[in-house]
Amino acid sequence: MAWKGRNFLSLADLSRKDMIGLMRRASHFLDAGDRYEPSAPLAQKIVANLFLENSTRTRCSFTIATKRLGGDVVDLLGGTSSVSKGESIVDTALNLEAMGVAAIVIRCTSDTGPWDVADQVGTPVINAGSGTNSHPTQALLDAITLTRYFGSEDLSGQHIAIVGDIMHSRVARSNVEGLTKLGAKVTLVGPSELLPDDLGVDTSTDFDAVLSDVSGAMMLRVQFEREATVGEDYRERFGLTEQRFSNFRGAIMHPGPMNRGIEIDDRVANIDSSPHNLILSQVTSGVATRMAILEHLVG
Amino acid sequence: MAWKGRNFLSLADLSRKDMIGLMRRASHFLDAGDRYEPSAPLAQKIVANLFLENSTRTRCSFTIATKRLGGDVVDLLGGTSSVSKGESIVDTALNLEAMGVAAIVIRCTSDTGPWDVADQVGTPVINAGSGTNSHPTQALLDAITLTRYFGSEDLSGQHIAIVGDIMHSRVARSNVEGLTKLGAKVTLVGPSELLPDDLGVDTSTDFDAVLSDVSGAMMLRVQFEREATVGEDYRERFGLTEQRFSNFRGAIMHPGPMNRGIEIDDRVANIDSSPHNLILSQVTSGVATRMAILEHLVG
Amino acid sequence: MAWKGRNFLSLADLSRKDMIGLMRRASHFLDAGDRYEPSAPLAQKIVANLFLENSTRTRCSFTIATKRLGGDVVDLLGGTSSVSKGESIVDTALNLEAMGVAAIVIRCTSDTGPWDVADQVGTPVINAGSGTNSHPTQALLDAITLTRYFGSEDLSGQHIAIVGDIMHSRVARSNVEGLTKLGAKVTLVGPSELLPDDLGVDTSTDFDAVLSDVSGAMMLRVQFEREATVGEDYRERFGLTEQRFSNFRGAIMHPGPMNRGIEIDDRVANIDSSPHNLILSQVTSGVATRMAILEHLVG
Repeated sequence: MAWKGRNFLSLADLSRKDMIGLMRRASHFLDAGDRYEPSAPLAQKIVANLFLENSTRTRCSFTIATKRLGGDVVDLLGGTSSVSKGESIVDTALNLEAMGVAAIVIRCTSDTGPWDVADQVGTPVINAGSGTNSHPTQALLDAITLTRYFGSEDLSGQHIAIVGDIMHSRVARSNVEGLTKLGAKVTLVGPSELLPDDLGVDTSTDFDAVLSDVSGAMMLRVQFEREATVGEDYRERFGLTEQRFSNFRGAIMHPGPMNRGIEIDDRVANIDSSPHNLILSQVTSGVATRMAILEHLVG
Repeated sequence: MAWKGRNFLSLADLSRKDMIGLMRRASHFLDAGDRYEPSAPLAQKIVANLFLENSTRTRCSFTIATKRLGGDVVDLLGGTSSVSKGESIVDTALNLEAMGVAAIVIRCTSDTGPWDVADQVGTPVINAGSGTNSHPTQALLDAITLTRYFGSEDLSGQHIAIVGDIMHSRVARSNVEGLTKLGAKVTLVGPSELLPDDLGVDTSTDFDAVLSDVSGAMMLRVQFEREATVGEDYRERFGLTEQRFSNFRGAIMHPGPMNRGIEIDDRVANIDSSPHNLILSQVTSGVATRMAILEHLVG
Repeated sequence: MAWKGRNFLSLADLSRKDMIGLMRRASHFLDAGDRYEPSAPLAQKIVANLFLENSTRTRCSFTIATKRLGGDVVDLLGGTSSVSKGESIVDTALNLEAMGVAAIVIRCTSDTGPWDVADQVGTPVINAGSGTNSHPTQALLDAITLTRYFGSEDLSGQHIAIVGDIMHSRVARSNVEGLTKLGAKVTLVGPSELLPDDLGVDTSTDFDAVLSDVSGAMMLRVQFEREATVGEDYRERFGLTEQRFSNFRGAIMHPGPMNRGIEIDDRVANIDSSPHNLILSQVTSGVATRMAILEHLVG
């Protein structure tokens, strides 16, 4: 693999070739199933999960990925860490480095947290979601899921809609980077007040018009826990309703956790609703993606 | 062992023979002491602890049981999980399954949570305490503790009192199922307003009258954390006081954590108060019980 | 090693020879680097971290130390443990013992917690910080850090200032015990109202006068999380400011987490500010120190 990066902060740091290299390794892990790797490249290594925001799937996914590679984790979660004593994330990370951890996985509310740490800490840093700007492991797992679905690493000719509160979505930003790097056309869809026009791709407020043209729809979570408010007509205008679903034959994705009945109808969300529902495939891809990244940076 | 169940949700699902099979295996682990099993039947497997209610002993007990069998755990605890983002327990469990965990251990406030999950998730589900209706691993460990104390797997001829807030106790419900299956007579004792009459066994509001007839007394915790309120005369009427203790020669049990001075007097609670005090033996049995269940479902 | 203690509660329990024995072992681990010990003296053993106060570095440090020795941990943290159901720390510890853990590491707000547990529990107890009176693993790691800096296990002739809120500092109390045992002179410096006179060493309210005489300055954290209040002139009177730092050539220490700009200036706190800045060396020593203690008590 050509990529020699010490950290994994943003897909912008990776060439298309780097990205595909990681995706191929993740695909290898997916094909190998859910067993630990006998080679255990992370044996005797400890990865720190520094999660300053609540998270189920991302933290569990990194933990399982680390353990499958033979390593172990130490968790520092929001309320139980010294960060609640006012320590900066950089000082916390310097402490973890001084304890000899092999990598630091960071989730934080700050847009710059992982970069701030990487600037001052020699231990590899992995961005597990920062502020509203970047969630590169999510975008990489989404890319793997889509390329396996379409049967091609080249997404030229594919058109993907990302739908919802684009303004506050790090998932959307990282997916724009990743999907366009693989050749896909991306259109951002949402209420005009939540639709930034500076991300370099097309935007639309008309979900139905876009849906008739795309081969994949990535539904974003309405982040109520961040005091997101949406109009009463949100589901009608931007939800993947049963009606819309019945006329659509492309890939359906959601980074989770889902608000069933808001951005996606309950029955559409169910895994058995369609072979095109990739929502749990994304989760499975997530473990393999993090294995590939950890192995590359730490193994 | 005859039992072929995929999940461990309730003792009602087990025949008497199934129960005894698990109890014998747990006894084997108890006799083997506190070492890991060299055979490591859970090697390279990860068990998810999905604990949506606070718990010390049950979560630690499952964790230690998993590790003694050579496996590892990932914890999802109340406030730090996506469940706080409004995700349903079923969706959380589907995600864990998609990540490849080998089993999901669930504690929740809902009576139906573990069943809801088992209906939609193929990964084995273990009920670690649901709502007020079921706590089958507790009842199984209580059964093992009592059969070892009495020296017989058949509890015919034994009479056990379960004492306290029966109404809100999943421990009581599961113990009624388990103890009667082994042949014991069970009498439920408590204030009349906390004493349901539909559990199929005798009830009484007169602890002293019952105590003079039983060979074992299981004292329940007054669950102040669930806003339980008891009268000022609770200890006098339903507590295992020093006075009651001095006249009693049967087994004394408590699922913990104890309110010393309320349902059990401080000195009675101490392990060295009597060879009949089985309270910490229950805890030790708990690890072995969970090892037997995990080995059976996952190993 | 002569020390035969079953627990590690206070440096007062150790002879100078015992202390030096542990320090030599910790130095061995430091020289060996951050790899697991191949001999794995804690294999198949589980250490319980019973942390009833928030902590990042101490809990992580014990966790990493345990895992480097081949063992595993189970965490019981403040809000998620049964202690929040009103159970006493002794009952929680008795339960952990009954589950077969190999050692119990305790952090608590009570001055007597670890001793209360050690009185009634046979499993080895390690004090990871109790109330305001004792933090012996911190003092031992500070001693190792200083003896390596000075190049001698004998600190006779060295003079160390401990600076800040001495009144509420368990770090100060344990360091007075440890440093004087190794022969150092210790002077406690702080505002008069936070300066107890019964610790058996010199005290001063004049930091500049003391600083001109010492070979090491240990800056204490202002513990805002314990509602500490300090005057507006605290930094000017007792902070390690850039100005003071520019005239000082001794060891600089801080137990962390730091309040940059209060007890220590931002630029002084940075690891590259000086070869005399030992703050992250303390953190690295901490893992090795806890490995030495765990190996001695449990291995």
